[in-house]
Amino acid sequence: MAGLPAIDAPRGAYRERAIVPARTALLNVDMQNGEFNAQILARARMPGTPEAPKRAFYERIDSVVIPNQARLQEAARTAGIEVIFTVLESLTQDGRDRSLDHKISGLNFPKGCWEAKVIEAVGPRGDEIVIPKTASGIFNATNIEYVLRNLGVEFLVIYGVVTDQCVESAIRDAADRGFLVTQIEDCCAAETPENHIASIESMNGHYCRTRSTDAMIAEIERLLKQRLS
Amino acid sequence: MAGLPAIDAPRGAYRERAIVPARTALLNVDMQNGEFNAQILARARMPGTPEAPKRAFYERIDSVVIPNQARLQEAARTAGIEVIFTVLESLTQDGRDRSLDHKISGLNFPKGCWEAKVIEAVGPRGDEIVIPKTASGIFNATNIEYVLRNLGVEFLVIYGVVTDQCVESAIRDAADRGFLVTQIEDCCAAETPENHIASIESMNGHYCRTRSTDAMIAEIERLLKQRLS
Amino acid sequence: MAGLPAIDAPRGAYRERAIVPARTALLNVDMQNGEFNAQILARARMPGTPEAPKRAFYERIDSVVIPNQARLQEAARTAGIEVIFTVLESLTQDGRDRSLDHKISGLNFPKGCWEAKVIEAVGPRGDEIVIPKTASGIFNATNIEYVLRNLGVEFLVIYGVVTDQCVESAIRDAADRGFLVTQIEDCCAAETPENHIASIESMNGHYCRTRSTDAMIAEIERLLKQRLS
Amino acid sequence: MAGLPAIDAPRGAYRERAIVPARTALLNVDMQNGEFNAQILARARMPGTPEAPKRAFYERIDSVVIPNQARLQEAARTAGIEVIFTVLESLTQDGRDRSLDHKISGLNFPKGCWEAKVIEAVGPRGDEIVIPKTASGIFNATNIEYVLRNLGVEFLVIYGVVTDQCVESAIRDAADRGFLVTQIEDCCAAETPENHIASIESMNGHYCRTRSTDAMIAEIERLLKQRLS
Repeated sequence: MAGLPAIDAPRGAYRERAIVPARTALLNVDMQNGEFNAQILARARMPGTPEAPKRAFYERIDSVVIPNQARLQEAARTAGIEVIFTVLESLTQDGRDRSLDHKISGLNFPKGCWEAKVIEAVGPRGDEIVIPKTASGIFNATNIEYVLRNLGVEFLVIYGVVTDQCVESAIRDAADRGFLVTQIEDCCAAETPENHIASIESMNGHYCRTRSTDAMIAEIERLLKQRLS
Repeated sequence: MAGLPAIDAPRGAYRERAIVPARTALLNVDMQNGEFNAQILARARMPGTPEAPKRAFYERIDSVVIPNQARLQEAARTAGIEVIFTVLESLTQDGRDRSLDHKISGLNFPKGCWEAKVIEAVGPRGDEIVIPKTASGIFNATNIEYVLRNLGVEFLVIYGVVTDQCVESAIRDAADRGFLVTQIEDCCAAETPENHIASIESMNGHYCRTRSTDAMIAEIERLLKQRLS
Repeated sequence: MAGLPAIDAPRGAYRERAIVPARTALLNVDMQNGEFNAQILARARMPGTPEAPKRAFYERIDSVVIPNQARLQEAARTAGIEVIFTVLESLTQDGRDRSLDHKISGLNFPKGCWEAKVIEAVGPRGDEIVIPKTASGIFNATNIEYVLRNLGVEFLVIYGVVTDQCVESAIRDAADRGFLVTQIEDCCAAETPENHIASIESMNGHYCRTRSTDAMIAEIERLLKQRLS
Repeated sequence: MAGLPAIDAPRGAYRERAIVPARTALLNVDMQNGEFNAQILARARMPGTPEAPKRAFYERIDSVVIPNQARLQEAARTAGIEVIFTVLESLTQDGRDRSLDHKISGLNFPKGCWEAKVIEAVGPRGDEIVIPKTASGIFNATNIEYVLRNLGVEFLVIYGVVTDQCVESAIRDAADRGFLVTQIEDCCAAETPENHIASIESMNGHYCRTRSTDAMIAEIERLLKQRLS
């Protein structure tokens, strides 16, 4: 651990430190069929549809977020880093186990439905973990802290949709609970670019450090090379 | 609510009150194939097997616990009472997400395996909830408190195996968290009759009230009749 | 409860409903001497001090936030509504019990110090509850959910400083955990007006309803009058 | 860490391993004036008083438990091991914040009262942590898990009163949450010797390892000597 900044080093330097792969997990948030699929994208490209006003959001998921997540997760797997997924999914068909907030919002993904599955291009491989949730913040709605402790995880790399809601809640709660969080800016998207940027800026340096996909992959590959040499 | 004892009435009278069915859930603990099945029972009946010393335990599950649970759950369903199940089951095949304690104990029921399924005779019907866990106490290892709050549950009827471990931990933690708990004595079993009785007595009047299956079914049927009349 | 919207009524109508005073608590966040006092304000008014760039923030606390909180809390007490306070305060002098995040940020209010006391003008009266915390989100860092359940609270009215950090985390986590949250816009302040407005807008209609102090007091007085008539 | 048993070594060997002092805390449970004091002991020694039937319990606290706790804690402090206390104590005078269970049981130690203070002979020294609670299990009723994570604690040495209630709940919940627990048998007492022994036996080898005060002090002194040599 030579060269690590002290915990209370100036300007949050300790929060900016590199991950330790064996104690790191990626957390992919809400990248599920019900939030994005080919039909939604097609409708968003058609003027006058309900999805049309959010076209930029869906285009970003399609052309930026999904390819970046796929690349990042592949690099993580090569380095032996855990990849964890969360999706909106009830324990029941009728959704009576959902949070009050999701009942109010009319959100229900019945257990086992296609809409609750992680998008194939970025989905779990092999024995990776998927944790269903029924509220915005995964730390409030699930036992993820317990699972992360069991896995020995101390560093969390968080990304997905939408930046200023489920992703931001995960970052805030993870930081409070003692995890060192990295947010991957270009693996996230929000319904408007303004919301995306405002959330990224309010998290960076307060609740997490912020990295691009390229920078994070470079960090993982550098650490892997160090370990192997 | 006329006639209810005050919260601080003498001798814990408030804890002895009848349930309110619409705000009640049954919690069936660890009644899964890996804990009991026809082969285990057959081996326990064969002198000299590793299971033979626990024959009384398995006979009680077979002839007392399973029939009682089936009757109780049927009465509950008729009255519209939620029936919830928990089982030992990992989120992974290799069990790396298990509690340290279950790693030490060498306990792993890989996700999806037959041994992690609830015993058919007492298993979930229709849209009932099953919550997997990887430690003794369900409140420590899962998000059950969150789920119960979402369901509007205030009364928990708890039973299963084994009396002095996973069942007792569930009762202790539920009581601390504000649920009014009823333990069903003859829907539980422990590895020895002494352990079973000691645990039942230490819970009764401290962390819960204790009822027989017959008494609980009578209470449910009486309340159902009241509501319908 | 006649006239209440259904839980899944359109446009989150159920979230916009009025509180039920007997099941409501106000939650005052981080309004402590260490965050604001006469000296800080005096320095902020002096050009060239470290506090000068945040003068608008401190002026708002002085002239808007404190008077509004005092009025709101007085109305709440008259109606028998619980008023709860949280402050940044360690359990120790050296702060070793703080969250990793507050160690990184160099934040430590030793147990019992003046800086950890609620500002006198808005502080606890009589037997009101103060909950110390050592991270941003009170639901992550304390047992407040347990306390609120014990108090029978279902509605939370949240306000304080700073809008986009500790206040916002409290709102997000409260909503996920089933509380119906009202944010009081003009009882909050952030380091910049932009951060304040962005946070208020991102919460409103998603994690809470938003009200002015005047509107909330009017609601409380109307409900009190109904009850007394 | 050479010589450590594997996590899944036979017969729970990993649970029997020695502590690592820098990652260990002692947890002293409910040793407060309201549970034991000179007057209670005097009354217990007087035939016919309500306390008389529990005389053996109070004599054990006086002559065994308190001296052992004092010795153990002194050894721990010398080795730099954290000593943490929990007591029954409300956040309010009227106890409205207590758990439902303690309301039912009529238990209320108002905030700040003498009865809620740790018994002087075993009480906190210097900057040690005291965590108030209002239910049986400290993990259910407080933020102790959060505090322990912040302190870097992985090993918990648990003892106090009463063996089969608050102490046992702490052990069960600590084990489930990934702490390696040691119970100190002769730093505990229950209302009857039978309850004490039954609880000790049901914990040992399942949720914790069990040690005498002498053995634990010897282990601490041996580890200290190793470190210093």
